[in-house]
Amino acid sequence: MRENYHEELNNVVDQLVSMNSNVRIAVHDATEALLNADLRIAERVIADDTRLDVMHEEIEKQCFQLLARQAPVAGELRTIVAALRMVFELARMGDLAAHVAKIARLRYPEHAVPDDLVANFTRMAEVADHMIASAGTTLSQRDVEEASKLAEHDEEMDDLRRQQFTMLLADDWPHGVEKAVDAALLGRYYERIADHSVAMGRRIIYLITGEAPEGENWPNA
Amino acid sequence: MRENYHEELNNVVDQLVSMNSNVRIAVHDATEALLNADLRIAERVIADDTRLDVMHEEIEKQCFQLLARQAPVAGELRTIVAALRMVFELARMGDLAAHVAKIARLRYPEHAVPDDLVANFTRMAEVADHMIASAGTTLSQRDVEEASKLAEHDEEMDDLRRQQFTMLLADDWPHGVEKAVDAALLGRYYERIADHSVAMGRRIIYLITGEAPEGENWPNA
Repeated sequence: MRENYHEELNNVVDQLVSMNSNVRIAVHDATEALLNADLRIAERVIADDTRLDVMHEEIEKQCFQLLARQAPVAGELRTIVAALRMVFELARMGDLAAHVAKIARLRYPEHAVPDDLVANFTRMAEVADHMIASAGTTLSQRDVEEASKLAEHDEEMDDLRRQQFTMLLADDWPHGVEKAVDAALLGRYYERIADHSVAMGRRIIYLITGEAPEGENWPNA
Repeated sequence: MRENYHEELNNVVDQLVSMNSNVRIAVHDATEALLNADLRIAERVIADDTRLDVMHEEIEKQCFQLLARQAPVAGELRTIVAALRMVFELARMGDLAAHVAKIARLRYPEHAVPDDLVANFTRMAEVADHMIASAGTTLSQRDVEEASKLAEHDEEMDDLRRQQFTMLLADDWPHGVEKAVDAALLGRYYERIADHSVAMGRRIIYLITGEAPEGENWPNA
């Protein structure tokens, strides 16, 4: 019975790692749809979000059953409570990828992002990709060092968002209100994807060490 | 011991109800700061968000301890798992109230919201207020009927957001890019506050009935 229990617990972590990979693909593809005005890819990202919701459902049910049947304590309880939060963060990241794809779809066949913001969004997407990958590695290898990279990446994300605002709100912004509003919302979505990656990293640190990350309140972890 | 356990469980629910009241005040005050360009109130909402984070931390710790010490099953386990999610939704709603207040502060002494959008934002804030109140009543009275009102309110919120976009993106929008970007982000924040209220309502239905609400996937509940 205990054998089986640990198998189930490892299975939950494996599924989170797999869901994290799917989220990474979703964000990558949403960016491609956005920057290339590719309607087919946009539609696929939006449709595939349902699969992430199903994974969310499955993992959450397994956590609930483990809590109900096994009455876990200490590190095992931490793993399950952390998994319940992480699966939610991943589902939100999937939703945000779908939001990006929906803006690409809404503006098709036009490009939602004007030329002079393409480099900025390309870099935002790269940073998001690194962060999602870091969260996945942290989780699969239980590597606290890897998690600490997330905060650095997040600072770059914040810088990129500030640069966007500087461009959007400049007196000589030539692209009109619609493109500015789209860019502000898109920037918000990528920033939130990064925030969720950081939150995952904090949960993993808590899971491994039993301690909230330095300088962080436990609840936001 | 069991006596004490039920007391602790009820205590968690009472604290969630109290946190919900605090979030309702935060959203109300943030709106006042926004629509009256009131810097003092904006600063207070931003500062008070830390108190919501502390409540989050406290409630989460209590849930964790209940799981560790009491090995709850069935309805009690559902209550604790639902509480872990609800406390997170409430903390996010508090963050969003602070985001609204930060835009009010950033634009002070100007009004961030132009005159012709004041009615729209006033109504958005009213709908958000009803929804937060409904979520609180649903929780304190374990009233599934009350939870069903949340979906109706949420539809009105979506309509209000669509009306905003129609105004912002009209060819004759006279207020420039900055006001449009602010309004788009503010609209997003109120919409997300509403979404979190709906998510709370779904968690409460699950808590009371053990079933996901009709037409809803369990994970999004």
